[in-house]
Amino acid sequence: MPVRYTPPVPAELLPVAGVTLGAAAARIKNWQRDDVLLVAFEHGTTAAGVFTRNRFCAAPVTVCRRHLSADGSAAQGLRALIVNAGNANAGTGAPGIADAEATCAAVAAALGCAQDAILPFSTGVIMEPLPVAKIAAALPQAKAALAPDHWFAAASAIMTTDTVPKGASRRVAVDGVPVTVTGIAKGSGMIHPDMATMLSFVATDAPIAAPVLAVLAREIADASFNCATVDGDTSTNDSFVIAATGRALLTPIERTDDPRLTPIRAALADVATILAQAIVRDGEGATKFITIAVEGGRDAAECRAIALRIAHSPLVKTAFFASDPNLGRIVCAIGNAAAPDLDPAGVSFRLDDVLVVDKGGRAPSYREEDGQRVMQQDEITVRVALGRGRAKATVWTCDFSHEYVSINADYRS
Amino acid sequence: MPVRYTPPVPAELLPVAGVTLGAAAARIKNWQRDDVLLVAFEHGTTAAGVFTRNRFCAAPVTVCRRHLSADGSAAQGLRALIVNAGNANAGTGAPGIADAEATCAAVAAALGCAQDAILPFSTGVIMEPLPVAKIAAALPQAKAALAPDHWFAAASAIMTTDTVPKGASRRVAVDGVPVTVTGIAKGSGMIHPDMATMLSFVATDAPIAAPVLAVLAREIADASFNCATVDGDTSTNDSFVIAATGRALLTPIERTDDPRLTPIRAALADVATILAQAIVRDGEGATKFITIAVEGGRDAAECRAIALRIAHSPLVKTAFFASDPNLGRIVCAIGNAAAPDLDPAGVSFRLDDVLVVDKGGRAPSYREEDGQRVMQQDEITVRVALGRGRAKATVWTCDFSHEYVSINADYRS
Repeated sequence: MPVRYTPPVPAELLPVAGVTLGAAAARIKNWQRDDVLLVAFEHGTTAAGVFTRNRFCAAPVTVCRRHLSADGSAAQGLRALIVNAGNANAGTGAPGIADAEATCAAVAAALGCAQDAILPFSTGVIMEPLPVAKIAAALPQAKAALAPDHWFAAASAIMTTDTVPKGASRRVAVDGVPVTVTGIAKGSGMIHPDMATMLSFVATDAPIAAPVLAVLAREIADASFNCATVDGDTSTNDSFVIAATGRALLTPIERTDDPRLTPIRAALADVATILAQAIVRDGEGATKFITIAVEGGRDAAECRAIALRIAHSPLVKTAFFASDPNLGRIVCAIGNAAAPDLDPAGVSFRLDDVLVVDKGGRAPSYREEDGQRVMQQDEITVRVALGRGRAKATVWTCDFSHEYVSINADYRS
Repeated sequence: MPVRYTPPVPAELLPVAGVTLGAAAARIKNWQRDDVLLVAFEHGTTAAGVFTRNRFCAAPVTVCRRHLSADGSAAQGLRALIVNAGNANAGTGAPGIADAEATCAAVAAALGCAQDAILPFSTGVIMEPLPVAKIAAALPQAKAALAPDHWFAAASAIMTTDTVPKGASRRVAVDGVPVTVTGIAKGSGMIHPDMATMLSFVATDAPIAAPVLAVLAREIADASFNCATVDGDTSTNDSFVIAATGRALLTPIERTDDPRLTPIRAALADVATILAQAIVRDGEGATKFITIAVEGGRDAAECRAIALRIAHSPLVKTAFFASDPNLGRIVCAIGNAAAPDLDPAGVSFRLDDVLVVDKGGRAPSYREEDGQRVMQQDEITVRVALGRGRAKATVWTCDFSHEYVSINADYRS
């Protein structure tokens, strides 16, 4: 059960002009479900992607980078995404890359387009050969299923340990013209090298030039998926792609300072934030959703480092699980992440509205029962003030439960 | 039950000439046990300490630093250590520092020596005032108990969540003269901000000048306690002190390249390594002891970063708990820690003798049952070869079990 996340009903995921989606069952694992997703785009679609920085990136990530320009944008236009669950095609060396390309070739043949207009994605077990033949055999079924209103089925087909499909839509007016943004994601809070991955695909019908989309994708990933963390690990397959079909009746947006981009950027950021938070809310074994906001820092990097240190501390996470207002654990995490010149006497933090630590020590006003009250909530904000600047950073995380150990200890058995 | 660690019997912990130890019950918590330890040293004892780098260091750490020279050595000679369990005197601000000094003053009065010849240590709950009066009231009992053969009682008095007392001794011959090294430690694998801390005290009767001891302490801490990790957090109170009473019949060792230092350094390193590993073996909920050795790196820092990333990954740790030879999780951790210019194709790793990954991919010789066999052991070495240099680094860690969540979720309740 995700923490305060209600999955969308199919009708909430608005079609995006120029995008059709079709799922199929390739039986990549021994399961009864769709596990292959084909997303097709009409001519003229631009795209940009942001990918894992893990050195052992998966073969499909290598192929995505190959099919994109240096800035991560689809220079020649994007025609399709092909996604499979159940096998990550990671740690598979040169044959894995050939398999990912072979998958793209099969899609290109089915759709009658260039192979490098296809981007491939995989999520599942690492170090097993990708069953290309199964995926290719499922393509006719996926192609036959292509429809603009299949976003919900698409979100379901890419799930691994996710307990619910994840998707969101926004519609905004740009110069009086409606622009739609719809996105889906998979990922279950904790990073999963063998379930492999956070994947997210967002589409809009706005006409956005590829280089502008590349800047947007990086900016939005940093403000959404890169704020969602559980253990700081980036999986081998993490991928986030934005596609812009240009079907909305607007002249092309070719500059990042085009004022028409403002509502579109907000809509994209909204959708990406909902999806990123949904991944944390559906975190393995998660019982609480925690926002960690660090402010008053000298720069954003120091705020982010402290926020991540708190978010990754198993002691802090188990305290949240136990609803224990264990101040020392948060203080200790701050102390470990802080720069050597940070003065502890300038630091304070709050649990929601409750001032816990003031000027580096227990706040005189703090009462254990107030901390206890906040800790019992299923959604909590930790707000740390460093008292030496104007920079800030926020990350989202979840608690650490018995269920997490069970899921991860028992997964392959 | 620690993993393959049998605590010493009292007779194994050899007296060190010039050192006496006495424990007492100050009832700092509502428990039936000794919780205060006094360690007295004869005149002429040199000492050096290494302390937490956490910015929120505890008051006793601040006072230790005050009572020591800039290099961490006891310039004027060390007369006593005063240690309490049950309260960390951390996050207590200026009053906490005054409390730590007051404790030293009480010891100085009891022993008739200077206040700055005393080093104070605390371990326990954070952000509660230190009950100085209780500690002072217990001092006569501790002083009356002072005896050279009370190392085992001392190791027991400083325990918190430790399930066994931890101690070790070595005796070596230096120019035909016997030199003794005995040490004790507390800490239970995971860092405990509120149980607060790894503490370790090691004494030798060798005559070692304070500046030499300062170099030794740093070097030995780096090769022992700084290799023992579970979550990378340094607690607010971590402290490691070596004292040298100079009672062995040797002329003073005043240079770090004195050849007589070689056997003494080895004995000190042995004792510190046993203690550091004992802390991991007694880790909260630990069922396995894991050595992670990374070699073939460009420098030790990159080897250590990769080793720590593997050691801190909750996914790797839960896989060890489950005896699951889950290759992908280790590959992913390496990939996250590695420098951007590391070529995955040069990387291999072994589980004990079993080659798992070769040239960045699954080794052709690897069979799941071989990995399974190693993973079922309670002591395992992961050996990673980076294939691009001669540097190496080793860390020790433990697995991550249900019991860990229970201990840390339920500790304060």
